[in-house]
Amino acid sequence: MSAPTVPPFTEWMRRIQERTESALDRILPAANIAPTRLHEAMRYAVLGGGKRVRALLVHAAGELVAAAPTRLDAGASAVELIHAYSLVHDDMPCMDNDVLRRGKPTVHVEYDEATALLVGDALQTLAFQALADPPGDAAGGQIELIRLLASASGSRGMAGGQAIDIAAVGQHMSREALEFMHVHKTGALIRAAALIGVRSGASSSTDTSDTFERVDHYARRVGLLFQVVDDILDAEADTATLGKTAGKDAEHDKPTYVSLLGLADARRFAEGLLADAHAALAPLDKSSVRLLELADYIAHRAF
Amino acid sequence: MSAPTVPPFTEWMRRIQERTESALDRILPAANIAPTRLHEAMRYAVLGGGKRVRALLVHAAGELVAAAPTRLDAGASAVELIHAYSLVHDDMPCMDNDVLRRGKPTVHVEYDEATALLVGDALQTLAFQALADPPGDAAGGQIELIRLLASASGSRGMAGGQAIDIAAVGQHMSREALEFMHVHKTGALIRAAALIGVRSGASSSTDTSDTFERVDHYARRVGLLFQVVDDILDAEADTATLGKTAGKDAEHDKPTYVSLLGLADARRFAEGLLADAHAALAPLDKSSVRLLELADYIAHRAF
Repeated sequence: MSAPTVPPFTEWMRRIQERTESALDRILPAANIAPTRLHEAMRYAVLGGGKRVRALLVHAAGELVAAAPTRLDAGASAVELIHAYSLVHDDMPCMDNDVLRRGKPTVHVEYDEATALLVGDALQTLAFQALADPPGDAAGGQIELIRLLASASGSRGMAGGQAIDIAAVGQHMSREALEFMHVHKTGALIRAAALIGVRSGASSSTDTSDTFERVDHYARRVGLLFQVVDDILDAEADTATLGKTAGKDAEHDKPTYVSLLGLADARRFAEGLLADAHAALAPLDKSSVRLLELADYIAHRAF
Repeated sequence: MSAPTVPPFTEWMRRIQERTESALDRILPAANIAPTRLHEAMRYAVLGGGKRVRALLVHAAGELVAAAPTRLDAGASAVELIHAYSLVHDDMPCMDNDVLRRGKPTVHVEYDEATALLVGDALQTLAFQALADPPGDAAGGQIELIRLLASASGSRGMAGGQAIDIAAVGQHMSREALEFMHVHKTGALIRAAALIGVRSGASSSTDTSDTFERVDHYARRVGLLFQVVDDILDAEADTATLGKTAGKDAEHDKPTYVSLLGLADARRFAEGLLADAHAALAPLDKSSVRLLELADYIAHRAF
């Protein structure tokens, strides 16, 4: 048996991004279903933008355990819906008060604040629905995915990280406190994406426990890497390149890895995290290639 | 075997309210867990108030199928958490801009807007976690409860009803449009509460299908009844009696059953809904007594 030809990463990435867009398009209610304005705004918030890093993680981790792509679509959609809801709420005037996201007006600017609030609320609900709905899946597996998503999203995960973030404006933060914030704010959902991918592959969790632990370690490093790179990009890039308002961390007087470590040390920290992520997967076979490439991709946005 | 003594409704109600309060207290993260301010605000939003009508419905419907009370606690907590999140977001300045709820300052007044936004977000997550978490439950049953809660809460349920509500300010609304709004805004979650109660009783759904259909019919009538009574109370009561800002519907120029039908016809409509709810359960045995009493209780808040 000859080895199957592995398409290059960029081709794989484009394919997953496209199938995620299709899956989200199917899961989101059509814009002609009442209430139409809400559904139109939900689609505006979710579709047609973003690198879908979390969806890529679900699929890359799922390939490690040969999970069925259709099962991974549900997990990928769920994490992207949670991510999208958090952006809509985070951009609102009472939070970051941002007007630009993925090169487009934010939801509260394009629609209104009340609609943005409800869009975020309804997208969160839809994320859990996406994991609960596929018929024919093993219910035990579905429940575990829902548990992973809920613990990553709630007050002890992403929403908790946001709360720490808003309290941090204008405050000095130790490196430990900064890491604690980011582990919650962005790390938890990125970690959940990878774990949901691995858990989508087997109805029993015991036969993949070593793989699960390794992906967990990888995902914790990549989650932090993602944030460090984000801080570097925010400090460096201009608004046009970034597709969202640049330099806003400094403007909002928010502590970042760059403000804490300086640009050079922030880069070195990112390189170390990338190496650690690679090392975690080293004992696994070549089916881990997408996770490795994805870590490189996340890192090389910045250096 | 002599018939067991059935405690009077008020005693039963107090017992369920107390055990729901305890269940919510256990499910909510302690206020000394980081982020502490968020967790304190979540507890402020949920604990120590409210009639827990939705929790009462879960337990009353669960008694019909002899569901284990501890299983019903999870469902009761989940619907109360969804309800609490919706109140926190609904009270925010970009929605109803209300300052008083259950006799206390609303969350964005007591804390701040950003915290209120995150409190609502995290309470929604916690609701799904409450249904997914109990170990040892049949996973298939848990998934079905999550589906019921998600479809009642999202853009085609409660959040959609809120969107219709904010679009309705200052608009003329037909009776059909008003009913469509309320079926979503308050009816969907009340219906889900009763259905979650029934579904908590059996791992298989087939053996209770007649009961399920009857409770579904009952719950649709009670959901509407609840809103009509709310409209009557809002038109009649003063702020001190209601524990929230009274007369706000008229002040906000929102269409209500009272503004559409007048007070007398709104009362007659409520009486008809109550009779219909009773009729739906008539063929069932005396285990339906709590559901009947609960419908009476909801109605008699107003007449």
